[in-house]
Amino acid sequence: MRRLRMGMIGGGPGAFIGPVHRFAAELDREIELVAGVFSSDPQRSTAAGDAYRIDPARAYPSLDAMFRAEAGRSDGIDFVAVVTPNHNHLPSARAALEAGLPVITDKPLTATLAEAHALADLVTAAGKPFAVTYTYSGYPLVREARARIAAGEIGTVRKVVVEYPQGWLAGEAVGKQAEWRVDPARAGLGGCIGDIGVHAFQLAEFVTGLRVRELLADLAAVVPGRLLDDDCSILLRFDNGARGVLLASQIEVGELNGLRIRVYGDRGGILWKQEEPNTLTINRLDGTCTLVRSGTGVLGADAAVRTRTPGGHPEGYLEAFANLYRDFAALVRGEAAPLLPGIADGVRGMAFIDTAVSASRDRAGWVTLES
Amino acid sequence: MRRLRMGMIGGGPGAFIGPVHRFAAELDREIELVAGVFSSDPQRSTAAGDAYRIDPARAYPSLDAMFRAEAGRSDGIDFVAVVTPNHNHLPSARAALEAGLPVITDKPLTATLAEAHALADLVTAAGKPFAVTYTYSGYPLVREARARIAAGEIGTVRKVVVEYPQGWLAGEAVGKQAEWRVDPARAGLGGCIGDIGVHAFQLAEFVTGLRVRELLADLAAVVPGRLLDDDCSILLRFDNGARGVLLASQIEVGELNGLRIRVYGDRGGILWKQEEPNTLTINRLDGTCTLVRSGTGVLGADAAVRTRTPGGHPEGYLEAFANLYRDFAALVRGEAAPLLPGIADGVRGMAFIDTAVSASRDRAGWVTLES
Amino acid sequence: MRRLRMGMIGGGPGAFIGPVHRFAAELDREIELVAGVFSSDPQRSTAAGDAYRIDPARAYPSLDAMFRAEAGRSDGIDFVAVVTPNHNHLPSARAALEAGLPVITDKPLTATLAEAHALADLVTAAGKPFAVTYTYSGYPLVREARARIAAGEIGTVRKVVVEYPQGWLAGEAVGKQAEWRVDPARAGLGGCIGDIGVHAFQLAEFVTGLRVRELLADLAAVVPGRLLDDDCSILLRFDNGARGVLLASQIEVGELNGLRIRVYGDRGGILWKQEEPNTLTINRLDGTCTLVRSGTGVLGADAAVRTRTPGGHPEGYLEAFANLYRDFAALVRGEAAPLLPGIADGVRGMAFIDTAVSASRDRAGWVTLES
Amino acid sequence: MRRLRMGMIGGGPGAFIGPVHRFAAELDREIELVAGVFSSDPQRSTAAGDAYRIDPARAYPSLDAMFRAEAGRSDGIDFVAVVTPNHNHLPSARAALEAGLPVITDKPLTATLAEAHALADLVTAAGKPFAVTYTYSGYPLVREARARIAAGEIGTVRKVVVEYPQGWLAGEAVGKQAEWRVDPARAGLGGCIGDIGVHAFQLAEFVTGLRVRELLADLAAVVPGRLLDDDCSILLRFDNGARGVLLASQIEVGELNGLRIRVYGDRGGILWKQEEPNTLTINRLDGTCTLVRSGTGVLGADAAVRTRTPGGHPEGYLEAFANLYRDFAALVRGEAAPLLPGIADGVRGMAFIDTAVSASRDRAGWVTLES
Repeated sequence: MRRLRMGMIGGGPGAFIGPVHRFAAELDREIELVAGVFSSDPQRSTAAGDAYRIDPARAYPSLDAMFRAEAGRSDGIDFVAVVTPNHNHLPSARAALEAGLPVITDKPLTATLAEAHALADLVTAAGKPFAVTYTYSGYPLVREARARIAAGEIGTVRKVVVEYPQGWLAGEAVGKQAEWRVDPARAGLGGCIGDIGVHAFQLAEFVTGLRVRELLADLAAVVPGRLLDDDCSILLRFDNGARGVLLASQIEVGELNGLRIRVYGDRGGILWKQEEPNTLTINRLDGTCTLVRSGTGVLGADAAVRTRTPGGHPEGYLEAFANLYRDFAALVRGEAAPLLPGIADGVRGMAFIDTAVSASRDRAGWVTLES
Repeated sequence: MRRLRMGMIGGGPGAFIGPVHRFAAELDREIELVAGVFSSDPQRSTAAGDAYRIDPARAYPSLDAMFRAEAGRSDGIDFVAVVTPNHNHLPSARAALEAGLPVITDKPLTATLAEAHALADLVTAAGKPFAVTYTYSGYPLVREARARIAAGEIGTVRKVVVEYPQGWLAGEAVGKQAEWRVDPARAGLGGCIGDIGVHAFQLAEFVTGLRVRELLADLAAVVPGRLLDDDCSILLRFDNGARGVLLASQIEVGELNGLRIRVYGDRGGILWKQEEPNTLTINRLDGTCTLVRSGTGVLGADAAVRTRTPGGHPEGYLEAFANLYRDFAALVRGEAAPLLPGIADGVRGMAFIDTAVSASRDRAGWVTLES
Repeated sequence: MRRLRMGMIGGGPGAFIGPVHRFAAELDREIELVAGVFSSDPQRSTAAGDAYRIDPARAYPSLDAMFRAEAGRSDGIDFVAVVTPNHNHLPSARAALEAGLPVITDKPLTATLAEAHALADLVTAAGKPFAVTYTYSGYPLVREARARIAAGEIGTVRKVVVEYPQGWLAGEAVGKQAEWRVDPARAGLGGCIGDIGVHAFQLAEFVTGLRVRELLADLAAVVPGRLLDDDCSILLRFDNGARGVLLASQIEVGELNGLRIRVYGDRGGILWKQEEPNTLTINRLDGTCTLVRSGTGVLGADAAVRTRTPGGHPEGYLEAFANLYRDFAALVRGEAAPLLPGIADGVRGMAFIDTAVSASRDRAGWVTLES
Repeated sequence: MRRLRMGMIGGGPGAFIGPVHRFAAELDREIELVAGVFSSDPQRSTAAGDAYRIDPARAYPSLDAMFRAEAGRSDGIDFVAVVTPNHNHLPSARAALEAGLPVITDKPLTATLAEAHALADLVTAAGKPFAVTYTYSGYPLVREARARIAAGEIGTVRKVVVEYPQGWLAGEAVGKQAEWRVDPARAGLGGCIGDIGVHAFQLAEFVTGLRVRELLADLAAVVPGRLLDDDCSILLRFDNGARGVLLASQIEVGELNGLRIRVYGDRGGILWKQEEPNTLTINRLDGTCTLVRSGTGVLGADAAVRTRTPGGHPEGYLEAFANLYRDFAALVRGEAAPLLPGIADGVRGMAFIDTAVSASRDRAGWVTLES
């Protein structure tokens, strides 16, 4: 079975997430990067193609050029990965779908909720595989946590605390990665909430299997002059009545990428930290505290098959990301990938962002999240 | 200089905090427990006196009996420690103050805010030393954190996250310690918020040197049939504009006594966890991460003098508590103890509880906290 | 039941372990410090007595003075605690035993093995309670580890790794605590091995219930000019054939008091670290990893009764030390205290020190440890 | 610049390290797996080729077949990776060198020291790039530790403790990975020492820049019936006089892959743990403790360029391994890779294994390690 051929949109010189998608896509040898429009600047697109070591002829200057040329090749691309800043997600995905290709896109789905709905319509009409890279749902022990909660190991979920602290935007936003994230024209309506808050939101729903029904949001632009939020405190109410707290920040100096989630049921609790991703802590009412360690025989099937090395050989962010691409490859090959986030999850993330931003701006108190 | 003589009110058979006060009071040999009304049941008071190994004649059946008898002794008590459930704080403290004695009381100050104001009037009128045992402000590294923030080490404070997760009341409230804490007649108007939320509140103000100006509270009684809150999520706004989040819960299964605080300024961040109390983490904007370890030469004076052993010899809860008693002994001897929480801190804690409970009940959104 | 009355030998101004013994003895109110010869310098003895707040008349200038005076009081001392540098352990304990009093002494038992045998004879002849404060065997979770290993939870012990890293003597030995420890005249024949290596040795035998049969020692005086060892690497063979490694050092910069032990059997493994003493890690062959946390319902009886606070309220070094004094008080009152280290354990520690020092000096390879 | 083409020897169905080499080689897109003799069983070699998704024609049944066919292709392999059990390292590498190709091989270099010397002669004669994958020297923070020690940050090294605990062979050796490692015919003269002890040895010399001059070894076959060592305790003396301890075990139940190293100088200490590889701890004499975190601005150049993601995005074992392949690709392209372990490091590892095994067998005490 041959490797799938990936075309990338975005990921030019200085990019962070483009190379990550490339690492992740290729790790399991299911996929190979062969083409791309890596930048809207043709010279930069060419330079990126060289850096990725692809055929120079397939580093294209424009979407049009790529889709036309690739359609004419017997070894043309099988799908497209969208890794641009948010405002280019919709046009990029639209062009790919119109070219008849499956799409996998970085999060958040789009720059605005309206765009998300538009994209959902396009995806429905196209009938092609579509995925959103909510990275953290690819971690084996996140899958393990989900499976154990679904199996009733902690009883009925009552309380969820999900936090995503970062500190890298505590000062001036300097550099390519920072600049577009604080620019409404490129990032869309959310700053911190769109960049990382939406990850926390998706993780909470993914792990618990519950859906947020209501929220109360307090978003702030803490750094003077910042136009988008850089600090978010959000209270949640889930559809089963469970309470939740979602905290995300980009101004907490010293925090790197401290995503963590704690889920408490009436019989147990479960804890996971992204920065130490190979251990899951499970507590029970009787005081028992168990560490579930990656790569050991205590893992369930879903986590076990997504772990590539024996216990004690740390896996991390790239491997988790690669698990999403493995699922996506399965989808493109016509197999099932039930846990891979799709268009509905993308739209839901945008609804979360939109609702939180407007509720916070209006000091609206508790508001309902569209389901 | 002789040891001060302590009379205790409360702390009878099955008590948790009574013995803690005794350990703490006596650790530095500044104070000696010599008398008490350990229970309203005279037989139980006698039994407790035996367990504490005090003179049987000084285990009294009533407040009246104790104050009368002790006043007649040349070696009578020098002050009173109040360690009863909350509803007895006011009458106990009143009786002690009327007997002309200094008082140190467990938190929260009283069962209601009205009682707190009444007690404040009594304390003012009496003019005697008065302290409230907000335990966690006694930890050396909490003092260190406060001193470093005050010295500007992390710049202007922008964000505070203080959490106090526990899980011991996730099921039925069974046993003496649990039963009174879920009973409005004995605990007062707050459940979780009065038992531990108020600690988190005091710690946040103590460490930052800021005061909470506004709050938005979401309190819940999660366990079916519970009459008082057992889970609290509160958003804070401090007087300098900094944002905060205060989480406290008694239903987070597996959490023991997980108080922790993170304070972020525009130049750094500082983190402390009660369950690993001998290390303070300090981050700086440039990526530097430093661990300040108890008992090493890097501690400031205030923390150093409150540490009894060299680095690596863990100190904990009792030693922290003892630091409050050491300060209180100084106060009783006429010396200064500027960091020891007093009547104003007690009233402020009650205002916090009262405001949060009523704001949550009324779904009032952001409300002002009386200053 | 009245408190036992303790007389202390040693513990004068600048002492570390004297105050620790005082804290520990008094914590449970079983014992009260009432007298002492705190220094061989009468003025310093008086000053220390004031600092301890005891009756000035009972801060004695000499052993003779103390034993004579106390024997003449109706409230005279019930036992003696020896907390001097090592070379004074034997004369101090001898004087106390000759006065007909029980003795509890700091470790190592004496300055030399010959002294240890002499003291053992005195103890046997006197027939009085006698204990040695191997502090770490007082930690509740050390007791828990011992009980679980004894119950077969990890199967047959095969391997033991015990480490005791410190760094405080990596430079010049400055200050009272450092100076006597590097002086053969006061410390005896062992430096690091006598100060901390013997703790590690006792801990290994205590936790496993095994006895070391052979050892191979490599001791070094790493700091230029040092006369006693400050770094020890020792291989062990236990009586059941299990292998062991014992590492102790005072020159490992940055290490505070990092005693830790790992015991591996054929069915499981157990780990404990003194600097995080409230958690025990237990692994099983099937990959299960469990944390046993102090103050929770999963503790066995022996650990549970030696824990004074609920889970999550950290206890530490002083509380562990106090558990030894609680056992000693029981012994003095005529009760059993089977886990309290006694004279035989003290002699055994000296045999370990003596054997290791001579084996290392002679580069003797594997040598037998007297049983 | 095109990708280098890799041929693999070994790595057939059920292999652990073969896929790891493939992941690692391809991660940076410098290299592509295109051919291999994945098993000595032709059918299994074909099956492995399919699993790796390479051209079926290039999954060869024998070394001969591969070297002949590849030599005849314009796009033939550029180098060979040897990932077989130890006894096949020499014949595999010899065949590759004779075919005029560079070689990168897994450790230990060969099955015996004699083979290692033979291979060294072949490498010298061939004059082709040659590398040994001592994985752990590829971790960015190991490079950082080395650089800081070389720069004098901890002063003169005095003491090294390197430990490599595992527990997976505590019971019967079941499964492909276990079986060959306990079989002298395939593993060679070392069991645990050859499999993981040699990693610890290389790490100690790599990080410190020192060389072991003498050692004292105690190796054991703990599991009944085992023919090779599964537990090693080794004392070290370095060429500058520093002392060291090297512990490795495969029978420490519950330990996964717990390699860790602590290096102490006269001015500081440095600690690193493979299972939490993204943090380095640095202590100084004055009590300062600093955490150096991967992906932050405090890293030196060498570590920074070997880190692929921002701080807080965990990297692990595969990324470290990939750093060795990145270095090897540079070497094959004619660039320098001074920190990549080469043939001399491979021979040295075998000398270590040989010396330790024979010294332990003979109970020889301290012996000299050939330089």
